[in-house]
Amino acid sequence: MRHRLEEAASKGLLANSAMIAHGRGEAYDYLLGEQTIPSALEATKEAAARLLAAKSPIISLNGNAVALAGKELLEVAQLLSCPVEVNIFYRTPERMAALLGHLEEIKEAHGIEVEILGAAPDGQIPGLEGPRANCHTDGILNADVILVPLEDGDRCEALVAMGKEVLVVDLNPLSRTAKMATVTIVDELSRVALNLVQLIPTAPIITEWNNPVILQAALSQIVNTMVYFDDK
Amino acid sequence: MRHRLEEAASKGLLANSAMIAHGRGEAYDYLLGEQTIPSALEATKEAAARLLAAKSPIISLNGNAVALAGKELLEVAQLLSCPVEVNIFYRTPERMAALLGHLEEIKEAHGIEVEILGAAPDGQIPGLEGPRANCHTDGILNADVILVPLEDGDRCEALVAMGKEVLVVDLNPLSRTAKMATVTIVDELSRVALNLVQLIPTAPIITEWNNPVILQAALSQIVNTMVYFDDK
Repeated sequence: MRHRLEEAASKGLLANSAMIAHGRGEAYDYLLGEQTIPSALEATKEAAARLLAAKSPIISLNGNAVALAGKELLEVAQLLSCPVEVNIFYRTPERMAALLGHLEEIKEAHGIEVEILGAAPDGQIPGLEGPRANCHTDGILNADVILVPLEDGDRCEALVAMGKEVLVVDLNPLSRTAKMATVTIVDELSRVALNLVQLIPTAPIITEWNNPVILQAALSQIVNTMVYFDDK
Repeated sequence: MRHRLEEAASKGLLANSAMIAHGRGEAYDYLLGEQTIPSALEATKEAAARLLAAKSPIISLNGNAVALAGKELLEVAQLLSCPVEVNIFYRTPERMAALLGHLEEIKEAHGIEVEILGAAPDGQIPGLEGPRANCHTDGILNADVILVPLEDGDRCEALVAMGKEVLVVDLNPLSRTAKMATVTIVDELSRVALNLVQLIPTAPIITEWNNPVILQAALSQIVNTMVYFDDK
């Protein structure tokens, strides 16, 4: 994953804060045992079910998501026949062009057919200020179910306030994003993307979802690793 | 702290992995409540006592340590009348020159008098391979007590194997470095450095030190934050 990030950085796909954010994720993943815990697999299955049942599902992509699992997330979108939209916090024309170009390259290299939005935003996410609010009317703005890997708390909150079902991937079960989302997958993104590729074809069914229970399960997993062993 | 790191990166002081390492630290600091917990203050006091009682104390500095607390760590060395030695894992002539030059600038700007080693290593830390083993005979090699903020596990192990007292700063109480060290300060480096500047003049006394108890205290602190509150 570090190698993928370094490559992405050299291509101009990442924000300055990308490496620090990844490091935070690494720490939580270490505490989770660098594995997909059962509650995370359950949440991934629920996310798959909700994306399949949606009228207008969409996958929002930022720099780290593209770097870590760009190909796999495009495959997920293809399985769902839904678009992806590049929607980044630190929006500059250069980064947007680099991300859109990189995704088109992946599509071509792997024969993936997916609509990629983000180049010409004509709408705004209500309640957010600045360029990070920009989005496509026929993309994020009108989607009913949105998968947003690695989202920040403000935007997660704004999307929930719009009445959308917000499915997030966040390794920190205590983050504002994790607590705010409809379904929180506490797992490393590239593992999540591979799991979604496996799960979507099995056509899982939506359940009555209790997100706090899932967050507590992740916290309990971490607590169980918080035992000192003098194994030096 | 992020700003300090960005500045340091632009000056060529940091390794590629520096931002990711900092992000990992941020995650653990968040779990500790971004504060100096009582057990960490106790460990800092013990480190101060051992540095004061040493025959040949030394402070080992790497890129992140210089970026986050370069000035404060030079002040600590001045209080102890001991040298610092730049000793980095990814050693290149450019980074060494940038780090040594930056430390000289800090000394000049703040009127600090401290010997800075690292430019001409004439010894090797036994048990380590490659440039990361290089050190000064009159510095790290012959020191009896060494403060190594942000050290990696291999070098911590090699220094302990040489019979030195190794005092480390590590936000992850489960890391190999944390478990291996003589005294582990589980705290954020800039806070530690400021605490050392306060504590050294009070001339604390060495105690019978039980490092596992300190690590367990940090783990317990983290466990106590691992409670889900539905405060959205």
